[in-house]
Parts: sequence; C-alpha cells; structure tokens
Amino acid sequence: MNEAASTTTAIPTRWVGPLRVSGDAIARDAPYEEVSVPLATYETPLWPSVGRGASISRELPLGIRTVVVDERMTRSTLFVAEDAVAATAAARTIDERLAELQEVVSGSSSHGRLIEVHSEIVGNLLFVRFEFLTGDASGHNMATKAADALMERILSWRLGLDYGSISGNFCSDKKATAVNGIRGRGKNVVAELLLPHEVVDRRLRTTASRMTDLVVRKNLVGSTIAGALRSANAHYANMLLAFYLATGQDAANIVEGSQGITYAEDRQDGLYFSCTLPNLIVGTVGNGKDLPHVDVALERIGCREEREPGANARRLAALIAASVLCGELSLLAAQTNPGELMATHLLMERKGGADA
Amino acid sequence: MNEAASTTTAIPTRWVGPLRVSGDAIARDAPYEEVSVPLATYETPLWPSVGRGASISRELPLGIRTVVVDERMTRSTLFVAEDAVAATAAARTIDERLAELQEVVSGSSSHGRLIEVHSEIVGNLLFVRFEFLTGDASGHNMATKAADALMERILSWRLGLDYGSISGNFCSDKKATAVNGIRGRGKNVVAELLLPHEVVDRRLRTTASRMTDLVVRKNLVGSTIAGALRSANAHYANMLLAFYLATGQDAANIVEGSQGITYAEDRQDGLYFSCTLPNLIVGTVGNGKDLPHVDVALERIGCREEREPGANARRLAALIAASVLCGELSLLAAQTNPGELMATHLLMERKGGADA
Amino acid sequence: MNEAASTTTAIPTRWVGPLRVSGDAIARDAPYEEVSVPLATYETPLWPSVGRGASISRELPLGIRTVVVDERMTRSTLFVAEDAVAATAAARTIDERLAELQEVVSGSSSHGRLIEVHSEIVGNLLFVRFEFLTGDASGHNMATKAADALMERILSWRLGLDYGSISGNFCSDKKATAVNGIRGRGKNVVAELLLPHEVVDRRLRTTASRMTDLVVRKNLVGSTIAGALRSANAHYANMLLAFYLATGQDAANIVEGSQGITYAEDRQDGLYFSCTLPNLIVGTVGNGKDLPHVDVALERIGCREEREPGANARRLAALIAASVLCGELSLLAAQTNPGELMATHLLMERKGGADA
Amino acid sequence: MNEAASTTTAIPTRWVGPLRVSGDAIARDAPYEEVSVPLATYETPLWPSVGRGASISRELPLGIRTVVVDERMTRSTLFVAEDAVAATAAARTIDERLAELQEVVSGSSSHGRLIEVHSEIVGNLLFVRFEFLTGDASGHNMATKAADALMERILSWRLGLDYGSISGNFCSDKKATAVNGIRGRGKNVVAELLLPHEVVDRRLRTTASRMTDLVVRKNLVGSTIAGALRSANAHYANMLLAFYLATGQDAANIVEGSQGITYAEDRQDGLYFSCTLPNLIVGTVGNGKDLPHVDVALERIGCREEREPGANARRLAALIAASVLCGELSLLAAQTNPGELMATHLLMERKGGADA
Repeated sequence: MNEAASTTTAIPTRWVGPLRVSGDAIARDAPYEEVSVPLATYETPLWPSVGRGASISRELPLGIRTVVVDERMTRSTLFVAEDAVAATAAARTIDERLAELQEVVSGSSSHGRLIEVHSEIVGNLLFVRFEFLTGDASGHNMATKAADALMERILSWRLGLDYGSISGNFCSDKKATAVNGIRGRGKNVVAELLLPHEVVDRRLRTTASRMTDLVVRKNLVGSTIAGALRSANAHYANMLLAFYLATGQDAANIVEGSQGITYAEDRQDGLYFSCTLPNLIVGTVGNGKDLPHVDVALERIGCREEREPGANARRLAALIAASVLCGELSLLAAQTNPGELMATHLLMERKGGADA
Repeated sequence: MNEAASTTTAIPTRWVGPLRVSGDAIARDAPYEEVSVPLATYETPLWPSVGRGASISRELPLGIRTVVVDERMTRSTLFVAEDAVAATAAARTIDERLAELQEVVSGSSSHGRLIEVHSEIVGNLLFVRFEFLTGDASGHNMATKAADALMERILSWRLGLDYGSISGNFCSDKKATAVNGIRGRGKNVVAELLLPHEVVDRRLRTTASRMTDLVVRKNLVGSTIAGALRSANAHYANMLLAFYLATGQDAANIVEGSQGITYAEDRQDGLYFSCTLPNLIVGTVGNGKDLPHVDVALERIGCREEREPGANARRLAALIAASVLCGELSLLAAQTNPGELMATHLLMERKGGADA
Repeated sequence: MNEAASTTTAIPTRWVGPLRVSGDAIARDAPYEEVSVPLATYETPLWPSVGRGASISRELPLGIRTVVVDERMTRSTLFVAEDAVAATAAARTIDERLAELQEVVSGSSSHGRLIEVHSEIVGNLLFVRFEFLTGDASGHNMATKAADALMERILSWRLGLDYGSISGNFCSDKKATAVNGIRGRGKNVVAELLLPHEVVDRRLRTTASRMTDLVVRKNLVGSTIAGALRSANAHYANMLLAFYLATGQDAANIVEGSQGITYAEDRQDGLYFSCTLPNLIVGTVGNGKDLPHVDVALERIGCREEREPGANARRLAALIAASVLCGELSLLAAQTNPGELMATHLLMERKGGADA
Repeated sequence: MNEAASTTTAIPTRWVGPLRVSGDAIARDAPYEEVSVPLATYETPLWPSVGRGASISRELPLGIRTVVVDERMTRSTLFVAEDAVAATAAARTIDERLAELQEVVSGSSSHGRLIEVHSEIVGNLLFVRFEFLTGDASGHNMATKAADALMERILSWRLGLDYGSISGNFCSDKKATAVNGIRGRGKNVVAELLLPHEVVDRRLRTTASRMTDLVVRKNLVGSTIAGALRSANAHYANMLLAFYLATGQDAANIVEGSQGITYAEDRQDGLYFSCTLPNLIVGTVGNGKDLPHVDVALERIGCREEREPGANARRLAALIAASVLCGELSLLAAQTNPGELMATHLLMERKGGADA
C-alpha cells in the first residue's frame, strides 16, 4: 500500500429512545427495561422514525417483547473427491466421527463449540457446513480458525478428499441465501407487541386493519413478485446498518440480517405486530469492539456485563430486533396514508438535521 | 425523542491504491487513470486485500477495465382495484398515457426523467414500477417524490383504483430480490482484467486453472446449493460497505448491491477475471454528500467535476466496481491455498492495525 | 435405440364440471359459458376436488372471471465476447437493429413475431433473450427455430461475438426461475371470484376470515420461509399437470406454470379469491395436439374454433386458470378444518376410484 | 360431478436403452446391470436423446454410476400461538418429546418412521416440519396421515397452540423452494460418469472443454441471472416427467424434482459429468402403482423384487437419475454445436414418429 495515512469516517449518530423492552435475553430482575439505542446513519430521518416506535413501546406494560429462538455461527468448507461415491462415503465418515471433530474445536478455542455438521454433495464436490456456538463473539474469525483445523483433521483421515476451499459459499457470509434461515446462522430473534386500537389510532394515525392489509399486500405479496428470498419486510436494512455501525459490528452482515419477516394480525384487542429476524450476526467482543466509542456504546446498552458466555450478545441481538420493530412499525404506518411518507420524510430530515 | 445529544461514530478509514482503471466512465483524456480509493471499515484486513489487487492492476497496460452497462432508479407503487379485470384495464391505460406521466416527472424535478413503467397484477392488486434517470443522485428521494406525484395523477384519472402504498416492495429497495437485476435498478457495471499467467503466479501464488475452478465450485455451485439469488461471489459486500460509508452513500443499499457475479476464464494468455455488479445504488449529490469528509473523499476520487448530469455518479460506480474486483481477486486467490486465508487474515489484521 | 416397441401409457382421465367461466378470452356472445374440463391424473381425488369448485362456480352470476393479462414465448441465446466492453457494444447494436431482427423472424414463420429483446451481460458473456408472439402454438419449436436464425444473423454482423449456446437458461424453459414472471413467458392469467359468505359457509364449511388467514399464513408466510420463488399457492401443480396431459401440452412446463400466487380478501360482501398464473406455456396447435384424444379434448372445450391467431390458446389458458382456482379453493377450504383433508382425501380416493 | 364418464389419456411411450448402470441401489450380484427404461411423453425427440446417452453408457465398464445419498418424506404443519414467546416454548417442548411423537407415527403406520422434526417461528406462527422414512412409498398419504395424528397429539398437550393447517407450505410439496434441497425431501441421488475424450469426440461430436464451458456458462451462470433457485441444469424436467408418468408417480412432483445441478470437469482422462437430483419424490407402491401398465413397467425395471423396505424405491430413484443423465448429456452436447439442436430435433421428431 503506498498510502499509509489512516483516518476515520464520521457517521452521524444519535441515541434514540428509550425503548421499553422485555424478554429472557433482556430483563433479569424486572419485568422490563428501558434502554436507549445508538443509531449511526447518513439517513437521519431514521432517528425520529425509530423514536416514534420507541415512544409507543413505553405505552405498553411490557413494551416490546423479544425472544431469542436460536443461535449459531457457521462456516462451510469445500472438499473435492474423485466422484460422488467417494464423496458420499467421506460424508458418512465425517458424520460418524463428529465427536472427534468436536474435540478439535474445543481444543483450539475457549468459547467455540461445534454443535452440528451438515454435508451436501454435488457430483464429486463435498460441501461440509460446520455450525458453532461462539459465546459473545459474532464468530467470523473463530469459525475460520476452527474450519482450518477441521479441514486439516479431515484431510488427515485419507478419505480420498482434496482441499477445495476454506469457504464454499454454503456458509453463507454476507450473501442473501436460503441456507442461513433454513439451517440457521446468527441469532434468530423475534420482537413483537400488541398495540391497543386506541394507540394505533392516536400514535400511528392508522388502523389495525389497514396495517395488516399493508403487511400482506406490500411485504408479502409485493416481495413475492419481486422475487424476494425468505424476506418480507419494509426496511430492516436501515435499522440494522445504523445499529451495527454504532456498536462495532461487521455491517456487511446486514445482507443476510435484513432477510426477515414482518407479520401482523388485526385482533379483537389490538394490532399484533412482529418482526422475525433469523440471521443477526452480532457480537459484543472481537474485531472492532475495542474501539473507544464502540466500547462506550456497548456499555451504555448494558452489553458489557459479567454474564455467562453469550448472554451479552443475545441481549444485543434482542435490542437490535426491538429497534428494527420500532422503525418498521413507524414506516409502515406512514405508508398506509397517501402522501405521509414524503411529508414525514421531509419534516424528519429537517428535524433530524436541525438539532443534530 | 428524549435524548438530543448527537454525535458521530468514527469508522476506521484508509486510502488504498492507487488502482489503475480505464473505461468510458473513467478516463477521458488518457487511456487510463490511477486513483486511490477510501475504505471505511472495522474489518481492517480489507485494506491490504484491496491493496494487493490495486497493486496488480498497475502491472496491466489498461489496468482494470470498467463498463457502465445501464443505469436507472425505481419505485413501485401499489394500487388496489375491485378485481383483476379492473386492474388490467387500469394497467393498460397507464401504459397508454406514459407521455403524460413523463411530463409529471419532468415538471417536478430538474434532473429526474421517467423512462419506463412496468405493471404487475396479482388478483385485484396492481403494482406499478416506475423507472427513472436521476442524474448524479442515487435518487431515493427523487423517486419517492415523483412516485407521490405519479400516484396522485393516476388516481385523478378515476380508473377505479384506490391508494395501496407509495412503495409496494416491487422496487425493491435494500432487499435481496430478483427484480432489480432482471429489470434493472442502480448502475449496472462490469469490472474486468486479463492477468498474464506469470502475474497470477508471482503476485497471487496460484494459477488461472485453480482460480477458475474455485470460481465455479465455490461461487457458482456453492452459491447455488446455498439457495443464493442472482448472486455468485465471495465477498462483494465487504468492499461495497467500506466504499459506500467513505463516500456518504446509503450503505443499506449493499443488500442488493452485493448481488453480483464473479466470472473467470482460464485463457491461453492468462486469467480473465470479471466482477459484474448490476445494482449499485450510488450518487455524488444528495443526502449525506455534503458532510465535509464525504465532500473531500468525492473530490479526491474525481467525482466533483463539472460534467454532464450523471457522469460523476457513473465514474463513482466504475471506481466502486474496480475496487470490488481488487478485493475479490485477492480473497479468492488466498482461498485456493490451504491455510492462507487464516494466516493472511491474522497478518493483515496486525499490519492493518499497526500503522492505523 | 435397440427397442422399437412403442406403446402408450394410459392416464386415468375424467371430465369434470361444468365450470361457469367468463372473461374476454372465453365468452364472446354471452355473459358466461359453462365448460367441462378434462383432467388426466393418477391422483383421482383431484376430480371431486375440482368438481366442488366447479359446482360452486355455477352459483355465481358470472362464475369464475378470467383475464389474460399478457402473452409471449421466449428463448435466450448465449454469445461469448472477448470482454465486457465488446459484449456491451454488441448489445447496443442488437438493440438498434431490432427492426432487422424482427424481419428475420417474420420471414421465417407465418405466426411468429419478435416483440422484445433484452440483453444481460456477465463479464464477457452476452445473454440475449428474445420474446415472441407465437399464435396458437405454445411456441417451443418456433422459438428455437427463430433463435437459430437470429443467432446466425447477429453472428454475420461481425461484432466480435462467438456462438455460446442456442439456449442460455435465461429463457427459462421448465425451470423455476424469477425471469419468467418478471419479464413474462407464456400466458399471464388471473382467475377470480367473489363468493357470498353464505356460499362459503354452506359449500366450503368455512368462513372468509379463516380462508384469508390460511392464505396469508400458509401460502404467503409458509412459502416465504420455505424459500419459495415468486410462488405462493397450495397445489397449482396438480391441476396444471392433469389439464396439460389431457390436452396434449408439454407437461414439463408445469415447473414454471406452478409459480403463481393465490390472494384472497375477506370483504363485506363475501370472500374474494384469486389465482394469478403468470407462466402458462400452452397451445392448441403443434407437437402432441394432433393425437386423436387430444384433438377431441381440445374440440370439446371449444379450442378448435376458427378465430384470430392466438384466440384458441388464450381461451385454453383461461380455462386452465379457472380449473386451477376450483382445485385451490377446494383444498384450502378443507385445510381450514382439522382432519378434513385426510378424511376427504380418503373419501375422494374411494369415490374417485369407484366409478373409474 | 355431473359427468361420470371416465376414460384414459394415452401418452406415447417407448422403452429406451438399455442403460448400463451401477451403484449400491442397483446392482447386487454384479458390477453393473443393463436396464431399459420406459418414457411416456408427447415430446418424442426425447427418446433418441436419452437413447444416445444410454448407448454411450454401454461403452463404459461400469456404465453410469449412481449413489443414493439420502431419503426422507416431509410434511410441515402450522400451529398458531398467542405470541412468539409461547410459540418458542411450544417448539422446545416438541423437541423434548420427540420420542413420544415417534411412537405416534410407528403406532399408526407399518413402514413410516419419524426421523427428524424442525420448527420455524414467524411471529406467533409455529411451523413444524416432520421428516419420515416411508419405505417403498413416495409417502404423500403416509405423511399426511401421520401429520394428522401428530397434530392431534401435540394439541392435546395444551401448549397454548391452535390448529393452523395440516400443511404449512414449509414441506414443500410440488413447489420450487429451497427447503427441500437444504433440509432434504425425497431421494437425494447423484448419477455420474467419466467419458474418455475419444468417446466424447466420436459419440457426442464435441470436447470435454466445450462441454465444461457450456455447463458453466449456461447451466450455472445463465441460471443465476435467470434467478433460478437451487437449480442449474438444461432439461431435467423432461426426463423426469416421462419416467414418472410411465411408472405411476405423481408427476406434479417434477416441480421440485427438477431442481438439480449438472456439474462437469474437463479431466486428463476424459469428461467427468454428473447430475445431482436431491428431491426425487418417487415410490414403487401406493397410489397409481397398481394400474396394470404401471405394474408391468415397475416389474420390468426390477422394482418389484422382494427386498428390504425402501430398496425398490431407491433402485427406482437411481434408474431415474441415470436416465436424466442420459438426456442431459445428449442435449448439452448438441447445444455446443451451432444449429445442431434444431437439426437434431427435427430429425428426431421424424424418427421418433416414424417407427412409433
């Protein structure tokens, strides 16, 4: 590199909220917590948009409920065999010797644990997808390092396999695919709330029926004809990017992170509204997490506590999902009314900038 | 919002290069230019990775060649009819009155131009996708504003349509879909080079044959079994995120931006290597482009020139595609060699941090 | 081939209906028609299932309304250039010389007409997708023959292109892709009805609300998590297969044909229920249509009339869509009730078999 | 139904081959077998096309090698909970009580066995995908019946779940989705061969290099830009349809069956060519298998033997995959040569009809 001058890029950031949030990953000693969240973005209208959702969450006894359904990090390796017969035999051996492979991982990492292995064969190609628990780290490096060791071990078994690639794109990292949602990758989180009809009317200037219609017509039908893949939402990517940047995440992971589903129901007692995000690749330790402003941000949102491994990262994921819900609720409500999106956007842009 | 304190998030940034780049959108008065590019990222090993590609580009007479194949920005609106018969009749009227709609857009925007309209009908739902030229702006706001005016006009025709949504997710913004690639959205750019075998060996420690095998097995076959959608590459998202952040782009657009294809051929005279990025949503004016560091960055890469509308944005897109190629070439080469990815990553992480 | 003994496979077939059907492609001199349809299938419970829908259609003044939104047949050819720069230049020439290409097609076919051409470039590869009108033929052979002539002509222009393939999989024939729905391929048809609540209750033993919930939860949300592509329905493939076989269609085209969307609304005046099928590749002349039983079947459903080219095929497509709606409505209604699917299936299997 | 007249549709059928085939599911007492296969189709050029591949297979010592990698049948049920918290708790209980659910299935079916259960949660919706072994049956009915019993049992646990649907489209039956390939559904089979260069030249009039280029450019790159989903082949659907119809399969299952991948390598010792078909839903007993012509066909291809449960169905799947390879190899070879497809097609159509 001929230019060593290093600097920083300053992304406008604001603390929004507080959100009222509940759920196993969040509140330990109280039914709920109130937490403000940092959003780093050039698109400053995002702040009041999420802020509106946050303010609404404080009208509900338990605020936004969250649940972390699953967590795992993955890496798929690629081996090349002579033919499918050899690849299949090798895949069976790998299944049978899972315990040995688990030891390889435990031996090379303090927090990493190999939990599942899945193979897929295409002709003579053998893709082996390793699934790990990685504690509070998002796990990119841990997974790469473990995969290196796992490949070396498997190649040492002399099953007729050659090295193909340390990553076979069946992981899949920072790509929109189906495998991450179906087999799991990252934290799988749902955020949800039940909004009394009166609140929907007063705070969102819409109705549960119109919101539900919009979720079906735009998010589900519209995404279907757009040829979307395991994805049906209005703008998860915006909230994810802003939260990821402010907390030192590898924000390229919004690609798979934004593959989630907004689902709503018009119920007797109000609007049920949920955001399901199956692929949040986030952590509270590791690359980028030691930068001063990141450290401060993680501490302020309560993700620097002494807890069992993984608990800080699960809390982080739950807060992210709750923030996504705030922004999604707010934008969809605006879109139920002709002209409101543009008007609000212009207004918010002004306000966002005004006191920035 | 109860917390007005606004601040910034500092993303580590480095100027990498220069890249040698050619192509209609780049070099006007010379066969090629040499341009350094800014990359803002927490993943600092990205810098030497792109740097290696840049250094290699300078060994080639024309460096990395680029071509901007197409450009447009889109917004899909949603109308609700009584039934499909009415929706179909309305769609035909919209087609017939295209000229009138084009005037609506020309009248409301100095640079915006409506170039195509496509409808899709699902039952009684009518999705109308507007395609615009937006000059040097990425065009999000221009498209929303124009769509507002277009909806108002169409509703005034009394075709039996009701307002559905200003955005019907058939646009599609910041989502991984097929429609953007197939119908077009953003700049469609190809970056490519032909690398003599000697250079492949000396600089990348691999061969054209092994590179081509990897591109097929990992990027094409591996992505296929992962259930990828119009996407076959190793890590476009990383380079896009870093370049987008450093130049004030709405980086949530890496979601569709990263849907691109790496294609390589092992030829008599070397390794042909190309990156095709059909969905780069980028601009040199508009939201975020006036921040001081963004302004400096855009100026330094030559995207603040007095040119015909759109020329600065096309140049920007071409430079982004060339940078993506640098990082893609470098990572894939590393993955052809067992253990190299991890070793290089660790080394680069140290080096990246060392002089940061 | 060492075994010349040729024979036939007898697929159980029954005429079901009549369906009451209306729409521009169907009824000319009356508000609606009543038409029985032939269904060839090993899955005989399909007969009473479609039969129930048909019987319900006869309770409605206009029966099942249909609209043929679009029609075209496609073939994508593949050219290989030196690089993307050359491929892009060639694509522009092809666009500019569209009129000449249209003459090539008109000259080689009596009914074929070239209506649109779309190119897509990946590195040095140039995919050119030709879109044709093909009269009453589904158009497979016409498209292949025309593409042959078009490639020859384009190669004669000496644009630096080499022959790649007569079919580049960007057509796409008999594959589940997004391009067919988004750019169009085959007949794009919607079938719909509005069922009074009383009929929903009496004939389907369910409610509009439960039907709508099921359509959203199963067809839209369930398909989304399954990673479906431009597809959200319960079992279009069953009806398509049976109708295609009975009328001499190339039934392998159910692969793309089954990519359609069921959309329903719970309205004041009843259940709105629609089936949108954008990719019906069907014809009334050509391969397989001269077999005696096919000829009889096509005549009996009114697709052997003297009409303007294409009218018989459009009528066929509308009848197919209406039949799909019958089976879809029936199965979904059954699935709203626990245990009904299995009970009905067993019963229908017995009845289906009884008089077979 | 007002028309009871039942009849049959006669699909032109020919026995093609014999194919030389080897693999665990095929040959027990000899290194290979030679088997002719029945193909029922209106597209008679398919016969000589598969016939050419069959003839080539007989030049190889082991013919076409096959391997059955996996097998299972699935049904996804849909439950509705109050919220995601309740849905998640229920999903965990279902996991914990797997043994009890396995007993439910074993008790209700002689050959059915529940092997895995996977849940996915979207908001308050709980999709539970059951995976079964179903012996020699394709298993549609067995899976539905078992799912009925499983739902009843789970609802009896009073976990706060309501009945949603006996099928939640997460199965997925007769739809193009990603879940079937990634989680498995049907027989997962690979067919492959290594063709000496001399044979490629003499029998296919092409080269290994041109074949490999075509597989990459058309099947992999072309399918990618078409927005294909876990699918990269030329025309699997054609062979599947013909074989399915001739052997009494539910041919609507070609929708997912055709989602497979052709992969080739240009090797020192010849052309490696493989077809991977992960989703073959086929059986030798059950619906449609008792019809006289089906019975004869299954017996003639050796799928009526007394073997352990599942062995006849696996043999059938292996034969189907081998037949798919024959047709795929033949068509791709033709497409490497300009004009050959059309010429051959016309010739084959004549020949196909001539001695029919």
